[in-house]
Amino acid sequence: MSKRTLRTPFFSVNPKSYLFGEEAVQFAIALDQLAEKYDVDVLFTCQHADLYRVSQAVQHLFVTAQHMDGHQIGRGMGKILPESILAAGAEATFLNHAEHPMMVEDLVNAIKRAQALGILTIACANSIAEAQTIATLAPDMMVCEPTELIGTGKSSDVDYMKQTNEAVRQVNPDILILQGAGISTVADVEKALKSGADATGGTSGIVAAENPLKIAEEMIVTVAKYKKEAN
Amino acid sequence: MSKRTLRTPFFSVNPKSYLFGEEAVQFAIALDQLAEKYDVDVLFTCQHADLYRVSQAVQHLFVTAQHMDGHQIGRGMGKILPESILAAGAEATFLNHAEHPMMVEDLVNAIKRAQALGILTIACANSIAEAQTIATLAPDMMVCEPTELIGTGKSSDVDYMKQTNEAVRQVNPDILILQGAGISTVADVEKALKSGADATGGTSGIVAAENPLKIAEEMIVTVAKYKKEAN
Amino acid sequence: MSKRTLRTPFFSVNPKSYLFGEEAVQFAIALDQLAEKYDVDVLFTCQHADLYRVSQAVQHLFVTAQHMDGHQIGRGMGKILPESILAAGAEATFLNHAEHPMMVEDLVNAIKRAQALGILTIACANSIAEAQTIATLAPDMMVCEPTELIGTGKSSDVDYMKQTNEAVRQVNPDILILQGAGISTVADVEKALKSGADATGGTSGIVAAENPLKIAEEMIVTVAKYKKEAN
Amino acid sequence: MSKRTLRTPFFSVNPKSYLFGEEAVQFAIALDQLAEKYDVDVLFTCQHADLYRVSQAVQHLFVTAQHMDGHQIGRGMGKILPESILAAGAEATFLNHAEHPMMVEDLVNAIKRAQALGILTIACANSIAEAQTIATLAPDMMVCEPTELIGTGKSSDVDYMKQTNEAVRQVNPDILILQGAGISTVADVEKALKSGADATGGTSGIVAAENPLKIAEEMIVTVAKYKKEAN
Repeated sequence: MSKRTLRTPFFSVNPKSYLFGEEAVQFAIALDQLAEKYDVDVLFTCQHADLYRVSQAVQHLFVTAQHMDGHQIGRGMGKILPESILAAGAEATFLNHAEHPMMVEDLVNAIKRAQALGILTIACANSIAEAQTIATLAPDMMVCEPTELIGTGKSSDVDYMKQTNEAVRQVNPDILILQGAGISTVADVEKALKSGADATGGTSGIVAAENPLKIAEEMIVTVAKYKKEAN
Repeated sequence: MSKRTLRTPFFSVNPKSYLFGEEAVQFAIALDQLAEKYDVDVLFTCQHADLYRVSQAVQHLFVTAQHMDGHQIGRGMGKILPESILAAGAEATFLNHAEHPMMVEDLVNAIKRAQALGILTIACANSIAEAQTIATLAPDMMVCEPTELIGTGKSSDVDYMKQTNEAVRQVNPDILILQGAGISTVADVEKALKSGADATGGTSGIVAAENPLKIAEEMIVTVAKYKKEAN
Repeated sequence: MSKRTLRTPFFSVNPKSYLFGEEAVQFAIALDQLAEKYDVDVLFTCQHADLYRVSQAVQHLFVTAQHMDGHQIGRGMGKILPESILAAGAEATFLNHAEHPMMVEDLVNAIKRAQALGILTIACANSIAEAQTIATLAPDMMVCEPTELIGTGKSSDVDYMKQTNEAVRQVNPDILILQGAGISTVADVEKALKSGADATGGTSGIVAAENPLKIAEEMIVTVAKYKKEAN
Repeated sequence: MSKRTLRTPFFSVNPKSYLFGEEAVQFAIALDQLAEKYDVDVLFTCQHADLYRVSQAVQHLFVTAQHMDGHQIGRGMGKILPESILAAGAEATFLNHAEHPMMVEDLVNAIKRAQALGILTIACANSIAEAQTIATLAPDMMVCEPTELIGTGKSSDVDYMKQTNEAVRQVNPDILILQGAGISTVADVEKALKSGADATGGTSGIVAAENPLKIAEEMIVTVAKYKKEAN
């Protein structure tokens, strides 16, 4: 199935369970205008119950589920059926986030189903070894926050970003890489993009900020600047 | 918070992952008309991504989530935030279904959060002992399909339905009981209601039938008949 | 089946995954001598692979598994069969620890199986609501560390210990209560016992101390003192 | 660390939760004699609580855990610490069995830890895609029972055995492959080895047989015959 192509560098806004309902819709609309104004591709994740409303309200955002199960139409009470998020207008889904880790079999199936249905996948890993394993499944994007390197004192932030970028690309150079850990300032966005990542984004650094839209705009402006320089 | 009161006996249609998107919406609309026509309360579960569309399309159904997590606004990537299903128009949620079993802590928190927010809860149990434990949490409804009694040859279907009804009511007589295992004919509906259950319902017996709406109508007519007799 | 009766107040040493093999056996032997010397009942948890060796090496300790599954003889690859820990000499098992949370059904079955086999159970809860639910299952002992009260500033440590003691005993006064959060000094042991708990114990406060056996002895001496006063 | 080398074809006896305690020890001793008599390498899995006793009682068997967690010495209540099974005499462990599926991160860590400690790993997969993903982690052995091919009518048993053998070897030719689904007769053992697998084995086909030791011996004799032919 056809998927919309992401233009790099892109940006991801991930409100987790901070936003829902009307507030999520309004924030998505505002981000949609920023995506258009600065000509930057922006992923926006929301609660499953909000996917339809958000999709209906926006034109540019890549509306993204926060999780999806790898199962088939049929049984599966309470599971997130891939077809259901697609029908609700989602174009992408996160998978295997540290707050929603997946069994090996589920992740394998979820990526296969997403590929068959034309859903973009953003798979998460907590270590370089895990990232390289998941990379063999060819998700469209990966987020890698290797806990084993954090706080060792041996690697700077940028060093481990580069190291994970390289580890993933060594397995599959087509996977786009999002460096998103602890992004709360424009300087963080710059650092992530300087590492060679294809994208960056934020959660609490944006939605828990005093003025979420203001910081989101500043970050998107920064991404736009890097995008121009790259082209 | 206020919850709409369910009038007994009521009926539940639970399409699990069989239906999604436009097809789920159309089926819900048809069931909504049956609920009105026969003056029977009907729960309709759907994929989380469809809760908003279905809620917008119906007037009588109790739109019901198939699962909900017990967590708070904040972190929780990929979790189903209680507030999100409420904002999408859901009035109820299943919890701890055999296809989505919950940790003790999660179930306790989910029922507490539902009570605080005014979301009706339908908690599932696989044994009498489990049913009695969960009953102490005072969910609004319970489904109990005690696998230990099935196929023993010692208890008839109706016997174990009565036994589980009694086991739950012994702990908390206010909990409404739904007997829903293997319901695929009008006779099954009658048997469940004759056991003294407050409700019955179906999944594959309805959605995988040749004419789902026809069998749903026959079942709802049967529930309506029992409802009249009871009043 | 018959279970050895615990004499209160008792003490629990819980090395989690800090100790294993010969080192666990030697530490158990030393604790066994302290249990005898001070005439205090002591639970000692260890890795499943060490249960047999430890049981063979001690005479007084209640050798305790750190987890047990609620399943039956038969299938269940990789599960901890209740019969297996009993055959290895364990007299007790922890259940539903925060680092190994259990599904509702599993916990219900595990406690039922333990009761049938004569294995003592220590069930853990993370909130008062969860503690009261689990108390309906009548485990022999409970540990309750209600995260919702910690750090609120409204309740002192001893206050919440008393509150959880009372909450559990309100449901079932026969359940013995172990207050074990953050026990690393003799003063902590005294505080826990003063709260009215039946037991206390430690993990890292003991095994990660400079001299584990010395701190264990001081704590056991303190328990012995309270035991004498109580009798 | 050094690991004992498995000589192919080898055999695996996997009693899951069917056997425990003294009965497991006695069965292991009998199998140990068969392993010696027929000069065939035999893996024997047992409950964690029995690993030490079984290891002490046998000389030839590869004593094998049914599961192991991928965590480090420290916290981890109720987890199976890799060091603990090694200290108990185990030489190998199953991982990610369908009855104990693992999170991606846990499996990655478990295989890494096993490699560091010199524990042989037998990783399980339920589909060809999952098998190929796991093969990138280089476990020593793999079991693949692809549910997607079973019962399709399009592939014979031997066909899908060959297909999975090839799929794994394509990723990493050093991984030994065990074909173990539904092995209950000598003919089944022959079929598995004819497929080109490095090993086969059984669970209920052996331990639930009228005379477990007799069928085990017949199967081991068959493996020995293939071993001679191969050398």
